[in-house]
Amino acid sequence: MTPPLLRQLHGFKFLLTLALSLPLLVQAAEPLPSWNDSPSKKSIIEFVQAVTDQSSKDFVRPEERIAVFDNDGTLWSEQPMYFEFLFALDEVKRNAAQHPEWKTTQPFKAVLEDDHQALTASGMDGLMKIFAATHGGMTTEAFDDYAKTWLSKARHPKTGKPYTEMIFQPMLEMLDYLRSQDFKTYIVSGGETGFMRAFAEKVYGVPPEQVIGTTFVTTFDYKDGKASILRTQKLAHNDDGPGKPVSIEAVIGRRPILAFGNSDGDLQMLQWTAAGTGKRFMGLVHHTDAKREWAYDRQSQVGRLDKALDEANKRGWTVVDMAAEWRRIYPFDAINGQVQ
Amino acid sequence: MTPPLLRQLHGFKFLLTLALSLPLLVQAAEPLPSWNDSPSKKSIIEFVQAVTDQSSKDFVRPEERIAVFDNDGTLWSEQPMYFEFLFALDEVKRNAAQHPEWKTTQPFKAVLEDDHQALTASGMDGLMKIFAATHGGMTTEAFDDYAKTWLSKARHPKTGKPYTEMIFQPMLEMLDYLRSQDFKTYIVSGGETGFMRAFAEKVYGVPPEQVIGTTFVTTFDYKDGKASILRTQKLAHNDDGPGKPVSIEAVIGRRPILAFGNSDGDLQMLQWTAAGTGKRFMGLVHHTDAKREWAYDRQSQVGRLDKALDEANKRGWTVVDMAAEWRRIYPFDAINGQVQ
Repeated sequence: MTPPLLRQLHGFKFLLTLALSLPLLVQAAEPLPSWNDSPSKKSIIEFVQAVTDQSSKDFVRPEERIAVFDNDGTLWSEQPMYFEFLFALDEVKRNAAQHPEWKTTQPFKAVLEDDHQALTASGMDGLMKIFAATHGGMTTEAFDDYAKTWLSKARHPKTGKPYTEMIFQPMLEMLDYLRSQDFKTYIVSGGETGFMRAFAEKVYGVPPEQVIGTTFVTTFDYKDGKASILRTQKLAHNDDGPGKPVSIEAVIGRRPILAFGNSDGDLQMLQWTAAGTGKRFMGLVHHTDAKREWAYDRQSQVGRLDKALDEANKRGWTVVDMAAEWRRIYPFDAINGQVQ
Repeated sequence: MTPPLLRQLHGFKFLLTLALSLPLLVQAAEPLPSWNDSPSKKSIIEFVQAVTDQSSKDFVRPEERIAVFDNDGTLWSEQPMYFEFLFALDEVKRNAAQHPEWKTTQPFKAVLEDDHQALTASGMDGLMKIFAATHGGMTTEAFDDYAKTWLSKARHPKTGKPYTEMIFQPMLEMLDYLRSQDFKTYIVSGGETGFMRAFAEKVYGVPPEQVIGTTFVTTFDYKDGKASILRTQKLAHNDDGPGKPVSIEAVIGRRPILAFGNSDGDLQMLQWTAAGTGKRFMGLVHHTDAKREWAYDRQSQVGRLDKALDEANKRGWTVVDMAAEWRRIYPFDAINGQVQ
């Protein structure tokens, strides 16, 4: 029989061994399980290992591990059109009763009559009018409510799923992996900041202060102890193209060491990231999967990938072939399966 | 003689006891040592304990523990004028050779000739011209260099100390204390963002992405793999008064639960913080110490504290009496001593 003290000691040793081995087990769990063992996965892991290894010449202090991700087409789908545009169209319909003039005014008339041709004809100017009317003229709190209500109720025309489920499982794993290695993950996207904040924390684990997007001018209102911030209809910042490095510098004030996008609107953010010193990672999601998602790139109306694809090929950036490299697209997909 | 196994065990137990007691020791160290045991210190500690105690009705999740601090007059001194304005004046002199036209153009002529009367006469318009000329027209990296060079070389006319040493020891302790309780500490100040970022991380432990200030319009420039962000001379955002809650919402997207300021320019930030639900802390640094620092409030040219002091008294906000409540002002002060 083992003496009591030794038994205690053995019990203690067992617990100690368990405690010491846990971090190893966690570390050993393979990251990015929804990625095939193909070039993109290897390049991501190689990069992360290099910048987090203290003995590596490429080591980067945790404070400087800034990673930026476009949203539309990079973290979630963007077809048949940007999801936020579908929100705006639905909001026009929801608010139509308060705006009888919309029945006879373009581009609102086109929205109310589902007249796609007239809507397309209204162009960028029409688009901005729809955005302004549905994103401005209310408090930030009211807008947050509208966005959350729509996100909880609306369903995608093709999959029948909530939009917040049409997020890319491999990218969720990448966000988790980076955060486990002390990266700070930011969204830097053309979507409106308040709209993205309405779901980014819950869906991507990205808190509001790490969401950077297009913004409208706001004003502060105060009366008798009640304070609110009002969203006007005036555009403040268009977070697309060159607007992305500009907002990154304005809000973060550090140059990212990793950037991921999927369209020409991400080119300048990728260039800004690439032009820094030390090891860098630039990635593009290439939509090649017509079966499980959509296939588009050059000349596409939404998510046009033309200049950025050329530059990626020229400079050796990582181009993710969605069809070949992702074992599953959405969290609700069966592995290697099709959209349910 | 103790058997070897038991000796090992005792040694292990000793280490274990030490390891377990360390967090308790840290917790037991009294926070805010440079604050006298007076009402302000009590109200700060009471607030922090209430919102961090999981069993309290006032508990706030760590993610929501946002604390915002004005800089000029709240974290460092602001007399005889805002330190950044002294930087701008020195920059005009440093760049004068490249701008022969300044010799004959106001307000630059007044700066070059140390003509305070003409400088004052140039008013807000003159001030903005000086700011634009010294804060715009270069890359963000070049500006960061200019600011850091000045901060390392310039000395305060009264104390002979670098400006980055004229920071308030009690406020440094408060920042540390809040961060030890999982608060995220932000600077929200009228100073220009890039200027404050040049020292905030080193001096206050506030990283660039938690510095919010006045900004100039910037543009992205890219050529042959070289990228830069250019600061123009056009003002983008004036982070003063109502501009503060607006920038807090734009950048952070959460309402602070604690705000600290020292002038009427902080009033709206304090109101925005106060108007949220749940327990809140609103504080004002009241400059009452003509001997160790400066004494000023109502009708002051810099750091005018008039409306905000009335509102603080009316609503029971914490007003820190610098002379009575701070055991030391600057880190270089002897305790209860005078400016060295």
